[in-house]
Amino acid sequence: MNIFSERMSSLQPSVIREIFKYMADPEVISFAAGNPAPEAFPADIIASITTDIMRNNPITALQYSISEGYPPLREWVKADLTKKGIFAPKDDDVIITSGAQQVMEVMTKLVCNEGETIICEAPSFIGSLNAFRSYKAKLVGVPMDDEGIELARLEAALKANPRTAFIYLIPTFQNPTGRTMTLARRKAVLALAKKYNVLILEDNPYGDLRFAGEDLPTLKELDVQSGERRVVYAGSFSKTLAPGLRVGFMCGAENMVQKATVCIQASTVHTGILSQMITHEFVSRTNFTKHTQKLATLYKAKAKLMLDALQFNMPHSIDFTQPEGGLFIWGTLPENANMVDFCKRAIANKIAVVPGNAFLVDERESCQSFRLNYTFPSDDKIEKGVQILSKVAKEMYK
Amino acid sequence: MNIFSERMSSLQPSVIREIFKYMADPEVISFAAGNPAPEAFPADIIASITTDIMRNNPITALQYSISEGYPPLREWVKADLTKKGIFAPKDDDVIITSGAQQVMEVMTKLVCNEGETIICEAPSFIGSLNAFRSYKAKLVGVPMDDEGIELARLEAALKANPRTAFIYLIPTFQNPTGRTMTLARRKAVLALAKKYNVLILEDNPYGDLRFAGEDLPTLKELDVQSGERRVVYAGSFSKTLAPGLRVGFMCGAENMVQKATVCIQASTVHTGILSQMITHEFVSRTNFTKHTQKLATLYKAKAKLMLDALQFNMPHSIDFTQPEGGLFIWGTLPENANMVDFCKRAIANKIAVVPGNAFLVDERESCQSFRLNYTFPSDDKIEKGVQILSKVAKEMYK
Repeated sequence: MNIFSERMSSLQPSVIREIFKYMADPEVISFAAGNPAPEAFPADIIASITTDIMRNNPITALQYSISEGYPPLREWVKADLTKKGIFAPKDDDVIITSGAQQVMEVMTKLVCNEGETIICEAPSFIGSLNAFRSYKAKLVGVPMDDEGIELARLEAALKANPRTAFIYLIPTFQNPTGRTMTLARRKAVLALAKKYNVLILEDNPYGDLRFAGEDLPTLKELDVQSGERRVVYAGSFSKTLAPGLRVGFMCGAENMVQKATVCIQASTVHTGILSQMITHEFVSRTNFTKHTQKLATLYKAKAKLMLDALQFNMPHSIDFTQPEGGLFIWGTLPENANMVDFCKRAIANKIAVVPGNAFLVDERESCQSFRLNYTFPSDDKIEKGVQILSKVAKEMYK
Repeated sequence: MNIFSERMSSLQPSVIREIFKYMADPEVISFAAGNPAPEAFPADIIASITTDIMRNNPITALQYSISEGYPPLREWVKADLTKKGIFAPKDDDVIITSGAQQVMEVMTKLVCNEGETIICEAPSFIGSLNAFRSYKAKLVGVPMDDEGIELARLEAALKANPRTAFIYLIPTFQNPTGRTMTLARRKAVLALAKKYNVLILEDNPYGDLRFAGEDLPTLKELDVQSGERRVVYAGSFSKTLAPGLRVGFMCGAENMVQKATVCIQASTVHTGILSQMITHEFVSRTNFTKHTQKLATLYKAKAKLMLDALQFNMPHSIDFTQPEGGLFIWGTLPENANMVDFCKRAIANKIAVVPGNAFLVDERESCQSFRLNYTFPSDDKIEKGVQILSKVAKEMYK
């Protein structure tokens, strides 16, 4: 007898997290993860903060708290988002979540009935796609060009799917492509969302990690300016402080956040309170903007190292995106190449990359691309890994 | 336009967590929470453990980890459950969750299609009921007597609901009644589950906090002995260490835990790793059995204090359960009394108790009972609070 629910049938273990297990093998060079650089963790400051919290305020850190989140952290997030134009003081509210991933789950639960549609970029972040799948959403992937999600195809998808719960977008340093949606495209996407009266879920975990190009307004900022209130925003401290703490947040219309609070009461009760207090102390004690700028500088160097090595070593028939921030480069093999074979040969040579079809709505679709991460591996491993990867590529595509 | 999903319509903010907000008023004496005694937190030991982790192993504490949980903690839990006869080494597996609450959510997601039935004790824990509601489960409450869930009514419910996903039970020091299911009843419930071929979700957050009577085997232990494998077990460190850390676990058949892992990948990715490391260090460094026995001794004294005060001060027409462990006493007013009025008058007099209908499948059902917690308030507040509550009761029911 199959005891599992129907919704589980579309949920498979994440390819990334499966590959993540290879990372325990010390010989594997992993370009597959989405992990921050370990040397970027402000471990000493967090250690001293944690000691202070446990000395001065242990009961607050250990007792149950409210589902909305640790009040001083919530206030800091609201103030920070207000500065960035993302928070509409009269209409919006914020809830702290267990990473931005929990926002994906809660948002789906909140607004998407089984069988309703969620439109996303193709490719898109597999963790989010799985959250959507776990509520039996119908996923519709819309291809991207260099400027972001393709408008004509997005409109066609909206037309074809009148029961669309929301459009899911990662406009800035997208996962997996590293691409950033242009300002014109952002405005046009918002206009389409208005025309078809659908919500947008904007996922922005990497926005503070820009190392090239000019800052662009988030969709949420444009939405606040327009007074439309159709964008819900997911933020995270996973890439800017430490993912192990599991602290993210959701910002959206007050009634949306109130319903999200009820969901979280029934799911995790609240995000670990010590984690929230550590995060709050860190952003209060330090200059957080300076901290994220330091991270961006580190990632700029690592991205350059990988891109230079790719350009120098790889066959020129393989194309790579040029990210202006974030964590990822998207490689695309020539048309007739077998991408899955390439990824398999890479891991056989102890180099882990993520096969691009993992990021598609339907993994069986053909895909010529693969994802590379430059933040987690050390500089040595970036150079060595790209050399080995290039050898594999040259053997396959001369 | 109602943008929210159908499943949200049955989800209301938890009455308990709403009342929890009154606790910010320093004048309110709260018998309403389910919080451990703050003086029971081993704050000094946790502080020193945390300092050591951040000094010796900060990267592990701060980086992404695997969804199954921190491996040493998982191994400890497996060993502890094996000692208790709860873990079947060949068949079972364990995943660490963000409190036992997350087990309720994940289990529902895993095995309960929308519209399918979950049978529970009436009354039962509101947090679990809300997790079930959040997947549009049909909830069927089965009344309890002093020995636990009523058998004839349970069988009637199973007969009437052939599409039952599982039976949800808190057999030991039940929330909210404080009652413990007898051994005979446990065996009979398992026999019914076998007869109707349904799963059982056993929630046991208080099992280690026994202060009177004799230990009874958990349903899971009896299930392991029988080789049936129809019980999934939810455990927690919230009541035995610290709820703010949000560390619990699910133990069940391997294929069930594997699917749960996929759900958690898509929901919280993993439970905060620093919290898991603190928990593991605590159970490793200390004698955890001794620690929980110390807690039980503290709670025995607090329960006695409250029960004695209730017996001495309250009108004898009001009945109270006599818990052998855990956190709660269940008070029942005389038949013609208005329980909601009583709870309202209590909070007007700055005493918070939880109206019993909050724990029913349908809050609009009539209910004469209310829940009292004796672990969170100080001894002074227990005495003072019971006096005020008794004054309210005497004014209403002489």
